Amino acid sequence: MVQAKTWILKQHFEGFPKDNDFELKQEQLPEPKDGEVLVEAVFLSVDPYMRPFSRVRMQPGDVMIGTQVAKVIQSKNPAVPEGSHVVGRCGWRTHTVSDGTGFIRVLSDWPQDVPLSLALGGIGMPGLTALYGLEEVLAIKPGETLLVNAAAGAVGSVVGQIAKLKGCKVVGSAGSDAKVAYLKELGFDYAFNYKTVPSLEEALKQASPEGYECYFENVGGHFSSVALSQMKQFGRIAVCGGISLYNDKEPQTGPYPHLPMIFKELRMEGFLVGRWEHKNEESLRRLLTWLQEASSSFF
Amino acid sequence: MVQAKTWILKQHFEGFPKDNDFELKQEQLPEPKDGEVLVEAVFLSVDPYMRPFSRVRMQPGDVMIGTQVAKVIQSKNPAVPEGSHVVGRCGWRTHTVSDGTGFIRVLSDWPQDVPLSLALGGIGMPGLTALYGLEEVLAIKPGETLLVNAAAGAVGSVVGQIAKLKGCKVVGSAGSDAKVAYLKELGFDYAFNYKTVPSLEEALKQASPEGYECYFENVGGHFSSVALSQMKQFGRIAVCGGISLYNDKEPQTGPYPHLPMIFKELRMEGFLVGRWEHKNEESLRRLLTWLQEASSSFF
Repeated sequence: MVQAKTWILKQHFEGFPKDNDFELKQEQLPEPKDGEVLVEAVFLSVDPYMRPFSRVRMQPGDVMIGTQVAKVIQSKNPAVPEGSHVVGRCGWRTHTVSDGTGFIRVLSDWPQDVPLSLALGGIGMPGLTALYGLEEVLAIKPGETLLVNAAAGAVGSVVGQIAKLKGCKVVGSAGSDAKVAYLKELGFDYAFNYKTVPSLEEALKQASPEGYECYFENVGGHFSSVALSQMKQFGRIAVCGGISLYNDKEPQTGPYPHLPMIFKELRMEGFLVGRWEHKNEESLRRLLTWLQEASSSFF
Repeated sequence: MVQAKTWILKQHFEGFPKDNDFELKQEQLPEPKDGEVLVEAVFLSVDPYMRPFSRVRMQPGDVMIGTQVAKVIQSKNPAVPEGSHVVGRCGWRTHTVSDGTGFIRVLSDWPQDVPLSLALGGIGMPGLTALYGLEEVLAIKPGETLLVNAAAGAVGSVVGQIAKLKGCKVVGSAGSDAKVAYLKELGFDYAFNYKTVPSLEEALKQASPEGYECYFENVGGHFSSVALSQMKQFGRIAVCGGISLYNDKEPQTGPYPHLPMIFKELRMEGFLVGRWEHKNEESLRRLLTWLQEASSSFF
């Protein structure tokens, strides 16, 4: 018999999540039945989407949502052999008994020298999000200038690197000097600390005086209002996240975006990574190839 | 020698335009030179775009911008014969001497029984705006539900009628009971007075409990925030105008749109009618055909 440790959402978050919104519980797991497997968490990820999703997809008492890389330690399902690794939406728990629904096998030819944790990062959901946002939503083209915020994050850092591979000029914003230094290591053409620049508008103008064709939006709020005014005519905006808004108790307010949208004829599209799930295997292989071809800092 | 009467913008508008922002001036016009024509205004239009455009495209002292239907009363340009009618960006003036640049000949086969004023309305810029917003931006499809606000306006009323022709369910919002009655005459499936409904959210839900695929945005501001929350997954929004915002001295603020944009994967695009100018002649003929095939109330 296996005891799973699980983190339970005790109550919905109000404002920033607090330790006592969670509770650690032990759960006695049954033996896997025919067709089921027992997996053990190897890596868990904490992603921004959890904050808004928890409100609409969870009830107090549920195990906290989340994806993990897990190792199959007992299998009565030939499709998921013992010793293999899967990525599953198991939530924050050490052990899970499952019939494997929703599990994705880690790429069979995953290279030994690539950490498995990347299956939750650059070669996982965040990498796919970056790729689909750039290719499917923005349809970014060589020579264009891209702005990305939260640029040192799991998604933003891959956004900037793929856009560089595609021949774009990349401007990134992040919230510390260490992150800015990291962006420069990754090859960003321009990076700045939005917390310390005297004026966000001036920083964006200085980074690209002629404006921006594309904007990969991870932050929302005030940053977005300033960025919209710096877009070129027919600029495109992929709205991937709004991390500055997720912890609001009362919705933040700002100027309505209509006037720049109209007079610059901007196109803005929100997206969730699951829209292109049918392309995931091919896309993960592309990301892995880029990783292997690139410098060790990639992803 | 012809005296033109012109309305001059004395000073930029602050808040709502006032009578004393304008000044009537007489202007002595020269004789048309070779290649030039003298035209006389027959109809002037007053359009919402003038309010925001005046700020960015005009200086105090300029003749107020605007399009007119004008009759050619003297011609030294064989392309623009005497007696013909043109639509030109002459501004608010009775007479204009011009080399014809930017003039558009009224369709040569304009029917006798169709008022020429429609060349500034349903068979002119507002009609084209409605058509391009629906076809080019929203790519609206039969069976979809469309929301349009300022629906009794020059653009909105044509939006609703074209969408009905295309087999859509059309919901319109307007600001008086008389306008709502007019929308029902035009064949809108549902129309309401946004000033008197107890709750805008409830009105939108009642009109289409299952939500909206398409939203033709003419108003902006609070209406837009409520409407975004009523969009279906993958809803499309054509941002044509933001009339509730144009007279603001300080920009109105509201909740940032990112969360519904992301979780409903909405696409929002601003547009100006000039983007599809190359299609105008064909498009005006299509609008005219619809007008002639439809009831007399059309446009």
